[in-house]
Amino acid sequence: MPEAPEKGVINVGVLGATGYTGIELVRLLAIHPKVNVVYLTSDSYAGKELSEVYPSTLGSSVGDVVLSPTEELDPPQGVDVLFCALPPGLAMKVAPGILEKGIRLIDLSADFRLKSPAEYPKWYKWSHEEPDLLSEAAYGLPELHRDEIAAARLVANPGCYPTAVLLGLAPLLSEGLANGDSLIIDAKSGISGAGRGGPQEQGYSELNENLKAYNVAGTHRHIPEIEQELAWLAGRPIRICFTPHLVPMTRGILATIYAHLLEQLSTEEAVKLYRQFYAGKRFIQILNSGTLPETKSVWGTNNCHVGIKVDYRAGRVLVFSVIDNLGKGAAGQAVQNMNIMFGFDETTGLKCLPVFP
Amino acid sequence: MPEAPEKGVINVGVLGATGYTGIELVRLLAIHPKVNVVYLTSDSYAGKELSEVYPSTLGSSVGDVVLSPTEELDPPQGVDVLFCALPPGLAMKVAPGILEKGIRLIDLSADFRLKSPAEYPKWYKWSHEEPDLLSEAAYGLPELHRDEIAAARLVANPGCYPTAVLLGLAPLLSEGLANGDSLIIDAKSGISGAGRGGPQEQGYSELNENLKAYNVAGTHRHIPEIEQELAWLAGRPIRICFTPHLVPMTRGILATIYAHLLEQLSTEEAVKLYRQFYAGKRFIQILNSGTLPETKSVWGTNNCHVGIKVDYRAGRVLVFSVIDNLGKGAAGQAVQNMNIMFGFDETTGLKCLPVFP
Amino acid sequence: MPEAPEKGVINVGVLGATGYTGIELVRLLAIHPKVNVVYLTSDSYAGKELSEVYPSTLGSSVGDVVLSPTEELDPPQGVDVLFCALPPGLAMKVAPGILEKGIRLIDLSADFRLKSPAEYPKWYKWSHEEPDLLSEAAYGLPELHRDEIAAARLVANPGCYPTAVLLGLAPLLSEGLANGDSLIIDAKSGISGAGRGGPQEQGYSELNENLKAYNVAGTHRHIPEIEQELAWLAGRPIRICFTPHLVPMTRGILATIYAHLLEQLSTEEAVKLYRQFYAGKRFIQILNSGTLPETKSVWGTNNCHVGIKVDYRAGRVLVFSVIDNLGKGAAGQAVQNMNIMFGFDETTGLKCLPVFP
Amino acid sequence: MPEAPEKGVINVGVLGATGYTGIELVRLLAIHPKVNVVYLTSDSYAGKELSEVYPSTLGSSVGDVVLSPTEELDPPQGVDVLFCALPPGLAMKVAPGILEKGIRLIDLSADFRLKSPAEYPKWYKWSHEEPDLLSEAAYGLPELHRDEIAAARLVANPGCYPTAVLLGLAPLLSEGLANGDSLIIDAKSGISGAGRGGPQEQGYSELNENLKAYNVAGTHRHIPEIEQELAWLAGRPIRICFTPHLVPMTRGILATIYAHLLEQLSTEEAVKLYRQFYAGKRFIQILNSGTLPETKSVWGTNNCHVGIKVDYRAGRVLVFSVIDNLGKGAAGQAVQNMNIMFGFDETTGLKCLPVFP
Repeated sequence: MPEAPEKGVINVGVLGATGYTGIELVRLLAIHPKVNVVYLTSDSYAGKELSEVYPSTLGSSVGDVVLSPTEELDPPQGVDVLFCALPPGLAMKVAPGILEKGIRLIDLSADFRLKSPAEYPKWYKWSHEEPDLLSEAAYGLPELHRDEIAAARLVANPGCYPTAVLLGLAPLLSEGLANGDSLIIDAKSGISGAGRGGPQEQGYSELNENLKAYNVAGTHRHIPEIEQELAWLAGRPIRICFTPHLVPMTRGILATIYAHLLEQLSTEEAVKLYRQFYAGKRFIQILNSGTLPETKSVWGTNNCHVGIKVDYRAGRVLVFSVIDNLGKGAAGQAVQNMNIMFGFDETTGLKCLPVFP
Repeated sequence: MPEAPEKGVINVGVLGATGYTGIELVRLLAIHPKVNVVYLTSDSYAGKELSEVYPSTLGSSVGDVVLSPTEELDPPQGVDVLFCALPPGLAMKVAPGILEKGIRLIDLSADFRLKSPAEYPKWYKWSHEEPDLLSEAAYGLPELHRDEIAAARLVANPGCYPTAVLLGLAPLLSEGLANGDSLIIDAKSGISGAGRGGPQEQGYSELNENLKAYNVAGTHRHIPEIEQELAWLAGRPIRICFTPHLVPMTRGILATIYAHLLEQLSTEEAVKLYRQFYAGKRFIQILNSGTLPETKSVWGTNNCHVGIKVDYRAGRVLVFSVIDNLGKGAAGQAVQNMNIMFGFDETTGLKCLPVFP
Repeated sequence: MPEAPEKGVINVGVLGATGYTGIELVRLLAIHPKVNVVYLTSDSYAGKELSEVYPSTLGSSVGDVVLSPTEELDPPQGVDVLFCALPPGLAMKVAPGILEKGIRLIDLSADFRLKSPAEYPKWYKWSHEEPDLLSEAAYGLPELHRDEIAAARLVANPGCYPTAVLLGLAPLLSEGLANGDSLIIDAKSGISGAGRGGPQEQGYSELNENLKAYNVAGTHRHIPEIEQELAWLAGRPIRICFTPHLVPMTRGILATIYAHLLEQLSTEEAVKLYRQFYAGKRFIQILNSGTLPETKSVWGTNNCHVGIKVDYRAGRVLVFSVIDNLGKGAAGQAVQNMNIMFGFDETTGLKCLPVFP
Repeated sequence: MPEAPEKGVINVGVLGATGYTGIELVRLLAIHPKVNVVYLTSDSYAGKELSEVYPSTLGSSVGDVVLSPTEELDPPQGVDVLFCALPPGLAMKVAPGILEKGIRLIDLSADFRLKSPAEYPKWYKWSHEEPDLLSEAAYGLPELHRDEIAAARLVANPGCYPTAVLLGLAPLLSEGLANGDSLIIDAKSGISGAGRGGPQEQGYSELNENLKAYNVAGTHRHIPEIEQELAWLAGRPIRICFTPHLVPMTRGILATIYAHLLEQLSTEEAVKLYRQFYAGKRFIQILNSGTLPETKSVWGTNNCHVGIKVDYRAGRVLVFSVIDNLGKGAAGQAVQNMNIMFGFDETTGLKCLPVFP
């Protein structure tokens, strides 16, 4: 396990600070009481002050940080941890150099999430160049892998959909209560999940007042990640039917999960089971029986709300899991992982309530 | 079969013209070339001109129609057909009097949709008072029941969710290709589906940027209607798992449907099958293999777009069916039924393209 | 004046049919009873069927029209009129060739709107190459220039902001009731006004739940067009203060106009004056005293709603003018111009009511 | 000046905690390091836990606070300050009793904002019952009235529009640079400004994709408040033309202000002047010349961004001022006032960055 920082205060940097995940990391780190933000990189805006790109940071401690070029990766002396919010395939390139310098790395791309190198050519069309690091990396879902994260120098921060789905299914699968062969996951995401920029199809006028599915029928890249972890929970291979949808809102994921029960279970028993499973996990809220979660309740936070309902007519259990795709689904969870890696209280810097309405 | 109107032009009225379904009916009827709008009722706004309630009608042929009180139901002489857009339980009361006068009735509520009177106490908490009319009523989904509609004096216009779901599933079930016991229907609707008014939970600030499921696990009132028609198509009882969601947009329904295939079928074969099934049905568009529908493409129209995709990994066929909940899901379909009942071309007054973007 | 078409039916084409203005033109023309759509061009999608780009056109009369390349401008024999919905600076290039073939031209760009060639270098940074056509072109605001439009072979369709502003101010200025030197125009537009595509700043996530001004303080290109027409109405030069804003909605313009009154006038008198001025103009609705217009009431239509209110405390008259920027502000008005040019009733194909809500 | 609390930690309560302003206060107070939230009242939800009304508070320190009835106003022993977020006319009733108990009061309604009792019958249709408290109350705009706030036991928290307008105009008027007789204020607000609940006109489907003005021509209740403070700044009476608009977004105000300059001034000089005026005011950001503010940059914060631009053509200066109507426009400012009243650093608990996008 890596050494703890001397003074309880660490120096951090963000690679790719001007994408949506990057700026959300910066927002959280800027007010984190144990953190100095000392290094932000950007390809598109290198040389500018952050507040020129994001006027929302004007007047804050990070507004006048000058963005370094991502390409000439050169973190200053004394950086303790880097967050990598670059597009897929880049973290794999920069990870060895960073780790060699004794800097820990929390990667928010998919580069270190899949344990089997053989999955990368299938889903990402490239071969993994660092299979040893792949083995070493901890899968950064703290509610399931806390000890590995605490000991890791390299953490693979989970995808947004996998976070919502795995937190919704973990109690059922680890207890052997649901049939892993008939899982249907109908997932809905806000539009920021697609990242900044993008084609005209991401334009306001065509996305507003519109709703559609995309990457359906076994084609979405989050599938191998979900199946890997579900298999680990269930102790046997799992194959899911996963359908993502694009919803006209900026943030939020709702995963609606359908599973066949292997044992009889009432809604109340299921709620009790989930609460036991997540006892002490302060970011997970299991709603009372009869209550369904909504995305706005976790907006801008690291929280996950889960509602459960048994459909007796249809012989299925329904699980509703909501997160903020940029919060618990990305930047919030990365900061939670950092807290664990450096021995801070897990909720440090993450205790805000959602802005509502 | 009722007599055809003499001059090819009919006089129509709308009961409940100031609700969302009502005003959409008025919009369509106002520009329908075979129709005179002669009678509009409203409880809340009786005595006002329509354009005082809906300035969108200013300058149109219906803007200065004075709203009659719904309670004192008194259609003028010569009315050929009434559309009833009142809350559930009221059409049942007024139907006998209307039909006795020789006026045909298209009811947009649930009052005449369920063939079995025994279903009403279970789902609506009241007993049906007109079981004979229930037997007589045609279920107004023209793509499935055209002949009955043409001959009917009373048509039960389908619910919005049932329309999307039934059009999406009819080819599979009537051909015996899908297992009716494992149907999962994950449906998403815009907010106008809840009607005008409503509690603060319908308020802009709490619905905007928000997403949630509601009436889940076998509790939504559209379930018996869907199951009745699916059973008729399949020739045996069907039980569905139906989950509606509320999406932050004004109009549109997307039903994502998951079915186990009983025979091997490719996506291309499925598309071909659907196109054969709906040959000549001009409001139904089956998208090319690989294309998924979006709600905005049918916005404000009577169209239904259906996309189909076989998920080989998961052994399921996915069907995506989109409509406008107030169009094909309510008022548009009602006008289509009227066209059929009076011998007009089915698309009369319904050929507009959606406003896009 | 050009000859009338023989059979009362004309053949039309749209250059730039896949931009937002282009597709709105196509939508209106597709259901216009006097029109055959015979030629659609696109740079980006040449060779594709229109419905591949816009699935909203599936099943309509234009869905399977194959898009021709804009560059090889080659309208088929027998085309009566072309609509040009290309970016600024291109209509000027293609107009001479089109007119020589005896085809009339309705240009929706700014290329023929400014009477003085000297204005183009100032506002558009290029010199006008066809000053004679500039003189010849009719300014296509039918409520002010009907006769010139009827006689024209080249019509310059007004900008969206100018349409809303000029219709709001014409009665006051032509009657000499308002001080033209102190006009303040605070205009707000939906996002489709910026056209399709555009930079990431047009992305959903950054425009949604956001509001800002842009191109302020005498820099917006619609200013010379507004000032030219106001000067014509007032009989002397006018200089306006014009501030456009971007509002998180797809369509709609609201121009809030502040003017000093030169004579005492009550709100009721102002309403009466406006109604007299626009008597017989069927797309202009002057709201009752005390009523304010909203953009949704004209959504998707060629209507303009105007509300007027005298602010006695502040000694000013306020005018509120709303249109759909793609309707009366672009494509709708262009079709209205076509109707006038070809002797059709002015409202042909434009009588639809707005979809509401 | 009231005594400081002993331990640097104070006990606070919120009257009307379940309205939009109330819940925003609770959100800010729940994470304020110097505050214990000990008392929350609600009329509609008395007896429930806060998280039953607002699931967004689940798992936070305030989620299980039981709501007390507002009517039986009975704050526990040891409360240091109450925030009153009740509808207008109620704070006036409860203030005397609260102050007698030695509890300080920050009122977020209009009850103590207008110095002249004679204004209340004119604008609010009721007479003020506590004219002495009216004289005593400090107007809680800290950038203008810091010392009075620090010494006050009763603070009248400004309205949302007045906050944006006054911060935008204070430098110009206090320096005598703008003509106070020709001020035009075109203000735009998100929908949460209308509060929770409300009539069907607040419904999602009719507000979404819609834009309109309301309460125009000298009728909005925020006018006397704005004029009172502008007169104080200018040293003479001021009469404004104020036009509020409703924009389809949840939060945010943009005030676009038009003033005639009394002296020649460049944009750069104006920016410099504003920066001097607001030196050390940490919530006010004056944007660089040429940059315009947007509401999303201050979303959920206590910040105000101001952009200035001289329109030389029109001889006017334009000021653009943005705030979050529930942040700096209500709850954020109230917490800022509390910080000042209790000697905390002014930014305590208010340093968060806006969630973006």
